[in-house]
Amino acid sequence: AAAPSQYTVTLFPGDGIGPEIAESVKRIFNAADVPITWDTHIIDVHAAKPGEDLISKEALDSVRRNGFGLKGPMATPIGKGHRSLNLTLRKELGLYANVRPCVSIPGVDTLYHDVDVVTVRENTEGEYSGLEHVVFPGVVESLKVITRDASMRVCEYAFEYAIQNNRKRVTAVHKASVMKLSDGLFLECANEVAERHKDSGIEFQTLLIDNAASLLVSNPALLDVMVMPNLYGDIISDLCAGLIGGLGLTPSGNMGTGCMLAEAVHGTAPDIVGQNRANPTALLMSALMMLRHMQLRPQAQLIERSVYTVLQEGVVRTGDIGGTSTTTEYTDAIIRKMDQLR
Amino acid sequence: AAAPSQYTVTLFPGDGIGPEIAESVKRIFNAADVPITWDTHIIDVHAAKPGEDLISKEALDSVRRNGFGLKGPMATPIGKGHRSLNLTLRKELGLYANVRPCVSIPGVDTLYHDVDVVTVRENTEGEYSGLEHVVFPGVVESLKVITRDASMRVCEYAFEYAIQNNRKRVTAVHKASVMKLSDGLFLECANEVAERHKDSGIEFQTLLIDNAASLLVSNPALLDVMVMPNLYGDIISDLCAGLIGGLGLTPSGNMGTGCMLAEAVHGTAPDIVGQNRANPTALLMSALMMLRHMQLRPQAQLIERSVYTVLQEGVVRTGDIGGTSTTTEYTDAIIRKMDQLR
Ligand SMILES: CC(C)[C@H](C(=O)O)[C@@H](O)C(=O)O
Ligand SMILES: CC(C)[C@H](C(=O)O)[C@@H](O)C(=O)O
Repeated sequence: AAAPSQYTVTLFPGDGIGPEIAESVKRIFNAADVPITWDTHIIDVHAAKPGEDLISKEALDSVRRNGFGLKGPMATPIGKGHRSLNLTLRKELGLYANVRPCVSIPGVDTLYHDVDVVTVRENTEGEYSGLEHVVFPGVVESLKVITRDASMRVCEYAFEYAIQNNRKRVTAVHKASVMKLSDGLFLECANEVAERHKDSGIEFQTLLIDNAASLLVSNPALLDVMVMPNLYGDIISDLCAGLIGGLGLTPSGNMGTGCMLAEAVHGTAPDIVGQNRANPTALLMSALMMLRHMQLRPQAQLIERSVYTVLQEGVVRTGDIGGTSTTTEYTDAIIRKMDQLR
Repeated sequence: AAAPSQYTVTLFPGDGIGPEIAESVKRIFNAADVPITWDTHIIDVHAAKPGEDLISKEALDSVRRNGFGLKGPMATPIGKGHRSLNLTLRKELGLYANVRPCVSIPGVDTLYHDVDVVTVRENTEGEYSGLEHVVFPGVVESLKVITRDASMRVCEYAFEYAIQNNRKRVTAVHKASVMKLSDGLFLECANEVAERHKDSGIEFQTLLIDNAASLLVSNPALLDVMVMPNLYGDIISDLCAGLIGGLGLTPSGNMGTGCMLAEAVHGTAPDIVGQNRANPTALLMSALMMLRHMQLRPQAQLIERSVYTVLQEGVVRTGDIGGTSTTTEYTDAIIRKMDQLR
């Protein structure tokens, strides 16, 4: 089927620095002639009344209808308070796989130079079931739920991703030495999916989560695409982001059936809100994952090359990665670079 | 009370390379005139009959009576099979806190040079409850159990450890943004214990597990003593080991009421068993944690300085850290160095 010539994308600018970085992405996309119309939905955490859904049915329907959403950071309360809006979106939209590629960026100074890994995280269940209860004062139980359906689906996605993106290997990360039944089921599914894809040329291996953490910091080049239950994915993807310079640089895409939500996974950075100092790279790179899904590869390539060149030149960069430039200056530099590279 | 002049220590050499590295520790302790008699217990996984306890009552009683145990690696089956012997020991002996210091070792080539962190891991509950069931074919639940008692005890231990070892800060690591009740309880306990120790001069902070993983790889000098639920401790302590050169170099001590079990936490390394190539450093350093608890600090200091000097000189080292020496040669070199430094 031919790709549509014009897309509508639901935009959740998010809290804190969200609106500033969303503005940057909109300007860059505009300059690159990306055929997107934004359908903006503001989710106001503070305006919600008790019992009311923070994310309106209109907002959810908008993503379902458009098939694509882009989301800035949204604050999550710790311990008490409402369920994370990030989690609500994942659940309501059935976003079953969270994909986070981490690639060393030339010019961004870190200890590692050869990181090129992708975390594929199960995004709907596991330790994120939300099922918890107080058994007795001072005794709490939380349920980790692992299902065959969700495990098969996310492992299948990991292999498809590996094939489509010319990767070499898929590693299933688990702790089935301890959680013999739950992670055991996940591992069984991973093995089954690997078996199905045994003629694809993609290698398959399994690794304990603790070993994976150790290997990633000592020899990340040994890893490629990794697939794992929800919480492990949360931890490992942040670890990987740390290897390449932080969450401010790392894209994330949530895959659902019939829709995709790209999101910046860093925080809302309350300390620098409204100061024009935020780094829009993570949101921008996430938006590029979305462009590739729209078959808008040429635009995605041009923007990505421009971002990499600006970061590599190192003259214009934001504070989080050692620079002094404003968000606007950095955005301008990317737009100028596109004009040069075009 | 005066320290006894002679100690008996229960020794579990373990599987695989266990007996070889245990032999190395015994030789070094002997050469350093450490007043220890070994009470050796061989746990033969293969000899056990179904339903029989793999770890005998005599073995457990021996640790309880002696107050000290030293343990080599024991293989853990994945998915199926008996419960991990490591876990059985922790459970039976009530070893409530697992302590893993990770310090950069001069001469061991890694990307990091300023790592000096300690993971204090809750060691009896959490995701390691062993409570799992199949709800329905293809749907599995595992229970994470967090109790006030265990959380208070391990947080209390972390503060005591920090005070006694002149550390600056304790960081409680959690995911209470998602597991609001269970990790919420852990966090509540950490805060309560911190409040009790507010005049100790030890700083206190809290950190999400994903942020901790990212921070440890990008700026480990910002962390000091960390305390956390069981599984997070498993992951984070291996990550930290990776920062300083791997599990072959990292000590671990399990603290119980009235007893302590020091252990090497690396694997049984089936590929090099019987080849005199294993690195005994982790077991040796774990045994030094034990000596310090016995108030045998002078011996511990001497052995530790010898190990560090040999590693720093870099002439004699085992294959896992880039050398070609045998276990025996490395052991000999440490013993010679003790004679020089004494
Ligand atoms: C905000 C939080 C609930 C979320 C998570 O834990 O999934 C975040 O850390 C992430 O990785 O997207
Ligand atoms: C062997 C295994 C059960 C154990 C654990 O997960 O606790 C090990 O990884 C460790 O860290 O001591």
